[in-house]
Amino acid sequence: MTSATLDSGPLACPVPIAGHDRIVLGHGSGGKLSAALLREHFLPHFDNYVLRRLGDAGVVSPYGVGLAMSTDTFVVSPLEFAGGNIGTLAVNGTVNDLAMMGARPYYLTAGFVLEEGLPLEVLDRVIEAMAGATRQAGVTLIAGDTKVVERGKGDGLFINTTGLGLVDEDFRPEPQLATPGDAVIVSGPIGVHGMAIMAAREGIAFETELASDTANLYPLVELLRTATEDEVHVLRDPTRGGVASALNEIAASSHAGIEIEEQSLVIPDAVAGACEMLGLDPLYVANEGIFLAFVPERLAGIAVDALRQHPLGRQARRIGRVVAEHPSLVVMRTGLGASRIVDLLPGDQLPRIC
Amino acid sequence: MTSATLDSGPLACPVPIAGHDRIVLGHGSGGKLSAALLREHFLPHFDNYVLRRLGDAGVVSPYGVGLAMSTDTFVVSPLEFAGGNIGTLAVNGTVNDLAMMGARPYYLTAGFVLEEGLPLEVLDRVIEAMAGATRQAGVTLIAGDTKVVERGKGDGLFINTTGLGLVDEDFRPEPQLATPGDAVIVSGPIGVHGMAIMAAREGIAFETELASDTANLYPLVELLRTATEDEVHVLRDPTRGGVASALNEIAASSHAGIEIEEQSLVIPDAVAGACEMLGLDPLYVANEGIFLAFVPERLAGIAVDALRQHPLGRQARRIGRVVAEHPSLVVMRTGLGASRIVDLLPGDQLPRIC
Repeated sequence: MTSATLDSGPLACPVPIAGHDRIVLGHGSGGKLSAALLREHFLPHFDNYVLRRLGDAGVVSPYGVGLAMSTDTFVVSPLEFAGGNIGTLAVNGTVNDLAMMGARPYYLTAGFVLEEGLPLEVLDRVIEAMAGATRQAGVTLIAGDTKVVERGKGDGLFINTTGLGLVDEDFRPEPQLATPGDAVIVSGPIGVHGMAIMAAREGIAFETELASDTANLYPLVELLRTATEDEVHVLRDPTRGGVASALNEIAASSHAGIEIEEQSLVIPDAVAGACEMLGLDPLYVANEGIFLAFVPERLAGIAVDALRQHPLGRQARRIGRVVAEHPSLVVMRTGLGASRIVDLLPGDQLPRIC
Repeated sequence: MTSATLDSGPLACPVPIAGHDRIVLGHGSGGKLSAALLREHFLPHFDNYVLRRLGDAGVVSPYGVGLAMSTDTFVVSPLEFAGGNIGTLAVNGTVNDLAMMGARPYYLTAGFVLEEGLPLEVLDRVIEAMAGATRQAGVTLIAGDTKVVERGKGDGLFINTTGLGLVDEDFRPEPQLATPGDAVIVSGPIGVHGMAIMAAREGIAFETELASDTANLYPLVELLRTATEDEVHVLRDPTRGGVASALNEIAASSHAGIEIEEQSLVIPDAVAGACEMLGLDPLYVANEGIFLAFVPERLAGIAVDALRQHPLGRQARRIGRVVAEHPSLVVMRTGLGASRIVDLLPGDQLPRIC
C-alpha cells in the first residue's frame, strides 16, 4: 500500500480541500482529499524526521541495525474475490511496502476486527490464506490481536498488518531520489486488482475472468537489486489510486517532472473493457502485484531484462522517464504526439479496494 | 492489552467451546471463548516458536538485537471518556504491552479505520491526545495508514497501534516464569478503566467521578527493574478480562498455582459501588493503568517500595503468592478463611472496553 508513513498522497498537493467537517469516502481514496486529511489533520501533530520522508515504510536504525516498519489496515469489500482474499492482500500488501523501501521482510503482526455474525468458515479461509502467504513470503507472524464488534458496527472483517524488515545502507530507494535522466519502469500489466474487486463486488460478468494480481514482490526487488548493483532510485507499488497517484506522489516528493508514454502501458483487454464499461481510467485503478522502479537510463534495459526473468515480471516495460521540465508534474504523451497532465483525482474512484 | 501474540486467553483452557459457527461478542471477551477462537482457529495455522510463548509481545533477535513487537486494535466505545480517549488508550496500551515484556518502547505505527460521517473535530481531539501520549512515553510514530469505510460499516473510529521496543537479555519477564515462592504484586487499584467506560457508555452517574486509569507504565517497570536487579519473573497488564483473566493466563502458561487474598485488593469505592449496581465482579473489569508483577518473595517488600516511589504506583500492594499446590489454578482466599477458584469467564462481561 502506498499509504504507509501516514502518506495518503503527496504533501506538496497544491490544492487546499476545504468545506468538510466530517469524514467522507473521498478521504480514503488516495487522492487529493486523502492528502488534505494527512496534511491538515495528522502531520501537524506527528511531524518527525521519519514520517517526513513519506516512504512506504518508516526506516530507523537502533544500535546500527537498519529496520523498516510499515502498517496497513485492510478493509476490502468483498472479503473474498478471484485471486485471493483479504488475508492474502493483508500479508502481501505489507510485505510489499517493506520491499518498496528496499527492506527484506522478516516479521509480521496481525490485528483482526471481527464483526458479530461473521461465519467462522470465512474466517478460517482467510486465516489459511494468510498463513500460506506468510510462508510464501518467508515472513513470521510474531504477534496478533482479535477484537469483536457488534453486528452493524463493522463489515465482516478488517485486518491490520504491520511488518518489520531489515534494510541495508547500500540499498535505500526513496521517492525523493527520482532524478532527471531516470527511466521509469513498471513490472507488469496495470489495473488488474481493482477491476477484479469491482467484478466481485458488482457481480459484473466480464468476458475474461479477472483475478487479483496480489503477490509478494520482494523476489522481483532482489532480481532488480542484483542486476543494477543497487542503483535503483525509487520503488513504489501503485496500490490505492493506481499508477497515476503513485507517480504524482513521486513527482511531488522529488520535485522532478515525470513523462510517461501512453502506448507503453500494458493494459489487459479485460481491464480495458471493464474500465470502459464502468467509465474508469485504468491509470487510477489499484494494483497489488506490480511496482514502479526508477533507475538511471543506462540501466533501463538491464533492469527490464532482470524483471522478466521472474513470472511476475514477464511483462515488465519501460514506460517513461524523469525530466528536468515541469517539476512535480506528471505528463502523459499520447499516441498522437499530444500530451496531458496526469493529476491526482480529487476523491474516490473505487472505495475499499484494499 | 493482554491479547498480543494472538493471545486472547491461555491455550491450556480445559473447556472446549463448541456450537458456534459464527463470531459472537464473547469471542472478543478475553475469556474462554476468546481462548477457544485462538486455539481452534488461529494457532493451527500460525503456530511458531515466538507465538507459542504467549507473551504480551513477540520477541525476536535479528543480528543479535533483541526486539519486541506488539499489536493491538482499539475498538473502545464511546471514543471519548473521562480520563482519555481511544487515542491515549491506543498509545498507552501498546507501549504497556512492550513494557510487560521488559522492552523499552521506541517506535509506533498507527492504522486508522474512519467511518464516513465521523466529525473531524473528534478525530482532531483523538490525534492530539495520541500525539501527547507518544511524547509522554518517549515513542516516535514512524508509519501510519488511514482507511475510510461507508456509514454503518464501522463505528466512528478504530485504531490499530503496533509497537517496537528493544529488549535486553538480562531482563526478560515472561508468563511461563511464575514460580512457587513468588510474591504477586499489583501496582495500583483495580477496575477503574472498565467502570469509567461503563459510566461514559451508559450515562450512569456514579457518586464519585470515575476516570480511566490509562497511563504509560514503563517508568514503573524501570523502577522495579532497578530495585530488584532484574529479578522480575512475570509482568502483565490486566486489561480485557481484568486481574482474574490475567492471573489465569499466567497460571496456565507456567502451570503454577496462584493464591490471592481478597482483602489485599485495592478496589476504589466508586468502582465497588458501580460494580455492585451493575452486578459486575471488579476482578474481571479491565484496567489500563496497572500491572501485575511476580518477584521472589524476599524481594516483595523492595518491589512494593520501589513502585510506591512513582505517583502511578502509590497504592502498590502484595496481593498473593505462587504455590506448588493446585497447578494452573487461581484460588482466592476470602476474609473468612474460605477459598474459591477464580476461573475465566465463558464470554463477555463488558464488550468493547478497549
